[in-house]
Amino acid sequence: MLVKMARGATPEQIATVEDKLREWGYKTGKMVGEEITLIGAYGDITRLPQGEIQEMGGVETLIPISRSYKRAAQKGSPGSLIHNIVNIGKVEVGGDKLTVVAGPCSVESEPQIMEAARLVKESGARALRGGVVKYRSSPYSGWEGIGSNSEEALHNGLKLIVKAGKEFGLPTVVEVLDPYDVSVYEDIGVDCIQVGEPNSKNQALLNRLRDTPLPVIHKRGNSLDIEAYLLWVERVMANGKENVILCERGLLSANKYTRNTLDLGGIAALHYQLSCLPVGIDASHGTGIRDLVHSMTLAGIMAGASLVLIEAHPNPLIAKSDGFQGLFPEQLTQLVTACEQVWELRKRIDSLYIPSANLEGDYDSRAATDKKRLFGREEKSNRKASEQKG
Amino acid sequence: MLVKMARGATPEQIATVEDKLREWGYKTGKMVGEEITLIGAYGDITRLPQGEIQEMGGVETLIPISRSYKRAAQKGSPGSLIHNIVNIGKVEVGGDKLTVVAGPCSVESEPQIMEAARLVKESGARALRGGVVKYRSSPYSGWEGIGSNSEEALHNGLKLIVKAGKEFGLPTVVEVLDPYDVSVYEDIGVDCIQVGEPNSKNQALLNRLRDTPLPVIHKRGNSLDIEAYLLWVERVMANGKENVILCERGLLSANKYTRNTLDLGGIAALHYQLSCLPVGIDASHGTGIRDLVHSMTLAGIMAGASLVLIEAHPNPLIAKSDGFQGLFPEQLTQLVTACEQVWELRKRIDSLYIPSANLEGDYDSRAATDKKRLFGREEKSNRKASEQKG
Amino acid sequence: MLVKMARGATPEQIATVEDKLREWGYKTGKMVGEEITLIGAYGDITRLPQGEIQEMGGVETLIPISRSYKRAAQKGSPGSLIHNIVNIGKVEVGGDKLTVVAGPCSVESEPQIMEAARLVKESGARALRGGVVKYRSSPYSGWEGIGSNSEEALHNGLKLIVKAGKEFGLPTVVEVLDPYDVSVYEDIGVDCIQVGEPNSKNQALLNRLRDTPLPVIHKRGNSLDIEAYLLWVERVMANGKENVILCERGLLSANKYTRNTLDLGGIAALHYQLSCLPVGIDASHGTGIRDLVHSMTLAGIMAGASLVLIEAHPNPLIAKSDGFQGLFPEQLTQLVTACEQVWELRKRIDSLYIPSANLEGDYDSRAATDKKRLFGREEKSNRKASEQKG
Amino acid sequence: MLVKMARGATPEQIATVEDKLREWGYKTGKMVGEEITLIGAYGDITRLPQGEIQEMGGVETLIPISRSYKRAAQKGSPGSLIHNIVNIGKVEVGGDKLTVVAGPCSVESEPQIMEAARLVKESGARALRGGVVKYRSSPYSGWEGIGSNSEEALHNGLKLIVKAGKEFGLPTVVEVLDPYDVSVYEDIGVDCIQVGEPNSKNQALLNRLRDTPLPVIHKRGNSLDIEAYLLWVERVMANGKENVILCERGLLSANKYTRNTLDLGGIAALHYQLSCLPVGIDASHGTGIRDLVHSMTLAGIMAGASLVLIEAHPNPLIAKSDGFQGLFPEQLTQLVTACEQVWELRKRIDSLYIPSANLEGDYDSRAATDKKRLFGREEKSNRKASEQKG
Repeated sequence: MLVKMARGATPEQIATVEDKLREWGYKTGKMVGEEITLIGAYGDITRLPQGEIQEMGGVETLIPISRSYKRAAQKGSPGSLIHNIVNIGKVEVGGDKLTVVAGPCSVESEPQIMEAARLVKESGARALRGGVVKYRSSPYSGWEGIGSNSEEALHNGLKLIVKAGKEFGLPTVVEVLDPYDVSVYEDIGVDCIQVGEPNSKNQALLNRLRDTPLPVIHKRGNSLDIEAYLLWVERVMANGKENVILCERGLLSANKYTRNTLDLGGIAALHYQLSCLPVGIDASHGTGIRDLVHSMTLAGIMAGASLVLIEAHPNPLIAKSDGFQGLFPEQLTQLVTACEQVWELRKRIDSLYIPSANLEGDYDSRAATDKKRLFGREEKSNRKASEQKG
Repeated sequence: MLVKMARGATPEQIATVEDKLREWGYKTGKMVGEEITLIGAYGDITRLPQGEIQEMGGVETLIPISRSYKRAAQKGSPGSLIHNIVNIGKVEVGGDKLTVVAGPCSVESEPQIMEAARLVKESGARALRGGVVKYRSSPYSGWEGIGSNSEEALHNGLKLIVKAGKEFGLPTVVEVLDPYDVSVYEDIGVDCIQVGEPNSKNQALLNRLRDTPLPVIHKRGNSLDIEAYLLWVERVMANGKENVILCERGLLSANKYTRNTLDLGGIAALHYQLSCLPVGIDASHGTGIRDLVHSMTLAGIMAGASLVLIEAHPNPLIAKSDGFQGLFPEQLTQLVTACEQVWELRKRIDSLYIPSANLEGDYDSRAATDKKRLFGREEKSNRKASEQKG
Repeated sequence: MLVKMARGATPEQIATVEDKLREWGYKTGKMVGEEITLIGAYGDITRLPQGEIQEMGGVETLIPISRSYKRAAQKGSPGSLIHNIVNIGKVEVGGDKLTVVAGPCSVESEPQIMEAARLVKESGARALRGGVVKYRSSPYSGWEGIGSNSEEALHNGLKLIVKAGKEFGLPTVVEVLDPYDVSVYEDIGVDCIQVGEPNSKNQALLNRLRDTPLPVIHKRGNSLDIEAYLLWVERVMANGKENVILCERGLLSANKYTRNTLDLGGIAALHYQLSCLPVGIDASHGTGIRDLVHSMTLAGIMAGASLVLIEAHPNPLIAKSDGFQGLFPEQLTQLVTACEQVWELRKRIDSLYIPSANLEGDYDSRAATDKKRLFGREEKSNRKASEQKG
Repeated sequence: MLVKMARGATPEQIATVEDKLREWGYKTGKMVGEEITLIGAYGDITRLPQGEIQEMGGVETLIPISRSYKRAAQKGSPGSLIHNIVNIGKVEVGGDKLTVVAGPCSVESEPQIMEAARLVKESGARALRGGVVKYRSSPYSGWEGIGSNSEEALHNGLKLIVKAGKEFGLPTVVEVLDPYDVSVYEDIGVDCIQVGEPNSKNQALLNRLRDTPLPVIHKRGNSLDIEAYLLWVERVMANGKENVILCERGLLSANKYTRNTLDLGGIAALHYQLSCLPVGIDASHGTGIRDLVHSMTLAGIMAGASLVLIEAHPNPLIAKSDGFQGLFPEQLTQLVTACEQVWELRKRIDSLYIPSANLEGDYDSRAATDKKRLFGREEKSNRKASEQKG
């Protein structure tokens, strides 16, 4: 962490900040410029009471240099990434196999979820999803999930999907909206808890999830920078929890045609550079258009996803919610097959990739020779130009 | 609501949609184009099961024509707006007077909140704010509010601010994060509940607030369109609750200099066109820069706000959270005075405003004459140009 | 096009609008709701003088129903898309083969562009890119391209890349910034003109490009909705030009980690639903991070791109501009190979895809049976619930 | 400027960077952390060839510490700001008086612009605006300005507005789209050139404007960060030009109700903190809704604007472009009067404002006493808590 002192900061103010940092156990460094002094704090900055420093006299702002999410961070190096494996029931996420989680937007009835589970199983997907209490942007939609009206309804709804999952050997993924429902989910035997986009920054819910043994799929909010997102994820992990899965489902952008704008570059950044956690792609919410779910799911795998969420329904034309983005059974089967093919190709391509870190040394050592070979004369005249300008 | 049928929709599909709409009690209309048929549904569309229609055969999409938030909507006309008055304790919000709510980001101790309350009272502000459980973007900030660690701490923290408010005759506004805390707030005597930006779409919390008799300040999420925001607000009001206050505190945008981008055009749209609810401005979070809070609060009033939230602290340099945006006491006093002046000026200017609706008739009736006077010859040549193009 | 009349529009105003539309040669339809009347205009709405209607008495707004870009629009159907093939020199874009265009950000010297061209050729890429006049966000960067200082410099710079392209049998793609340079590009033998992101809405430049016989790669602006983008593209095509290529290079979003946010969902929408034009992906500018260019280029192909732009340099560590996103030669070779593999896989997967349009009929006809099988009892109780609410 | 070296940077790489910086005439500083080394460069960083450094071995990234726009920057201090005065004809912008520039979106005919000029004069506004070549998002709008079809048309169109301005003693502001038209504007006697939003990053046009003696109103692009915007403005000023005016006309955001989202916080930041240039507000494009122009113009003045652009038309219902946002003459007159009142109030309020810089010293010196008084016991227990966590 760098502490940037204001233009007019006095030597006393600077000394006070340095003392404070050392008092808290940090080593410090200092860089005195013509107008501005910077103080560096070295050590575990996740412990640093930033607010307190920010308020000290003469301090202008804090400039983060290293990452303030520790548990969610990638621990490997470009050439040898280290990723967690998270278990959803008996299914490993983030390992050698791709994990496809499929199912209807909502659990609507026992026959519906049983038939959906059968179709999911037959498609080759490995886990079953289905909502029991649903987000609705309008309070007048007339359907907020089979479990929305009472605690009893919640119990019964959860039991349906757990039963369907057991029947077909599929672990289950169900979204939770209220911190007080978490223990109900645990008791009834849901295998994985999902935090939806509108709750991505719900502090009370995330704090509650620190204590659940269940794995958590934490979806990214539609206005969250990647690293801000990792800080909210870090909240769930802060006390030691490890089994968390990231999931991209779309950002707000200038694009009004798709329901959201899938940030696949964010997936690539998370998987290849920033985090040790498995990353999922939800192209159903990410596009909101049934015929784009296919391409964008595959593109998401190519970008770095190792988990895929797909909405599908025995007959999406009669689904009670979000049916317009749910796949027909034939499309699900086809997509699961295509997913496997893309996954295999990506693994092959990944294994050959030469990260820049492995090349920079060589090219750096050739820099002088290359400059001479490529620029020869230009280099000189260029220098002149910039001197004249100065 | 318009139902847009797909290009290849069959007459049977069209008839089925019409039948369904009529079966639900809507009158219908139809417009048959060369390629596309549109079906209109007239009546209370808040009751319309949109999902079910969207999934019917041949339906491409729904196009909303009238607003789907009824309770939060403006009921007047451009010339004579109708606005609710909401009471926070004995303070009327949305009436003839401006309401300034001020106080520290967090309740930090009894002496701190007592001194803050005294300063708020002396400044001329009319209500006291202060957080007892705080949002923090990092889980490692080291301070999540005086009430964050246990139920007892929550009780004690709330009691402090309620005591301070009573001492100085200021009703209190406190943010709630967890649905299960609402009854605690009610019991201890908080006068108004605030829903923070990260919870703007927290369905469980909003549903819970339907039942509180306390007024609710519902802040707008940083990625919510105004009308999408009004739908989340409508959720709180869906069962009849009326005492809700809107609040703008900044959107995500290209601007990286201020902490958020205050959408004052949104305030103007809400106040003058879309909603019957009072609108607040929170320039502390909206700018995140102490010296911009002043100007942006005043600009917010000019744009249409009738409630103002201001963070201030006896000594913001030692505040435990967000002190960088908290005003110094002198600045608070000055701003409250300036707020009154801007408010009085706005009321005067508002009273003179001639809405377009009152002018359009006249100008419409002169259109032909004006065209002749202003365009004379051009009109003709123009017609020709567009004919050639066709 | 739908004309939405205001709440208080008079019958005369409505009649006037209908008359006007018919006078212009449109068929009309009308839907009279309880509060609002809608008038439909059928025919070639690209000829419709929208502004004139918008200003007629009683008109509230226009609601577009069919697309206002005709030439850029997709003309096929979901099951059988129709795409233009655009030639860059002898290279076909949008046909059976993937087109990889690679090269340095800037032409820096004759040896540099010759060596770059050789590397591009060896990598298997099919065309050469390189800027001669460069965008720079700061006016003090000290380098605005080899051709930036005079007309003579522009000539010489363009000649270098054209020479390099000819030497290695690679057609050349060069960005143009000034409308008055277009003829210079044509004369010197550049094979394809690129419009950069900052010029995506540069009306003078786009108008000028209507008349060039050269193909144009028109990059999408970072705040343009897909359909708004297609309207700017349509501007280039308005007089009949056909050889235009779309290109996604990133939007503004909440993501601050990558330089821009690649909207691959936009690529999928353009390729599979909205446009007949080939779509390119530029992951160099789209990510701004060398090690993410690889994954995101491949993901872009999977999403629907048939052209790929890649920045690469003989030694990116000494590049005069944007070297941080330029690939090392080994990485380029590897990426071109991987691109081919992903392209082949996508073609195979595409050929099997069952579009929803081919399934909807069946599922629609089973809807009643499926509802009975899946929902049986629930259906009834549900109806009741919504009735009670109404 | 800080140079952040990568985690694995070697001592040689660090030394090379330091040497290079010194060779270019910068003083340097260094801060060696546990993992990361930072090198500071002190001096005029606008001369610094950033690209070259960014590409040196071991360099991870550059962190700007001081501003890279020099001419556009604010040179005063919080208590005593220094602002340029820019002349448009005989009208001073940025001085003691508010400047209202009003007029139609487009010059449509001689009678129209003459009547508009008369109305503008009568309203009390001080300059006349009107477009002669117009941006249109659709190429099929059928009207691109009276001067769009030929050079002769451009001449004639410009002559009309210049004549109208002279007749009523109003200097004229006209938008330019093509760099090659600038000299025509100068020759015919336009008093101020406007750069529109779509051209905010048009490098060729901005470079051309360096050489015009005319003042330039440079509108901010809808996806430009404030400081990125100032860098594009700096481009116009880079060779010494001083008479440039900033203008906010709206950003892209989540708000879909208004045409754009006016960033008034940006205006406040520009005027009070970042720039010496006068700032304008264009609420006509910024809202796109006639009845919101009034409030948002006034709010813009309150936020810090000293120039106001307003679209108005003798009869906006018959305007050929953007009439829906043009004011009726009565509204213009009323708004100009209101603008003056808000301006006077803001000046009064501004003169009393106590900037934080004037208070921080006092509050800093009381910090220890205040902590003891306000926190007493808490301080201790707090320290403990954070120790336990570490």
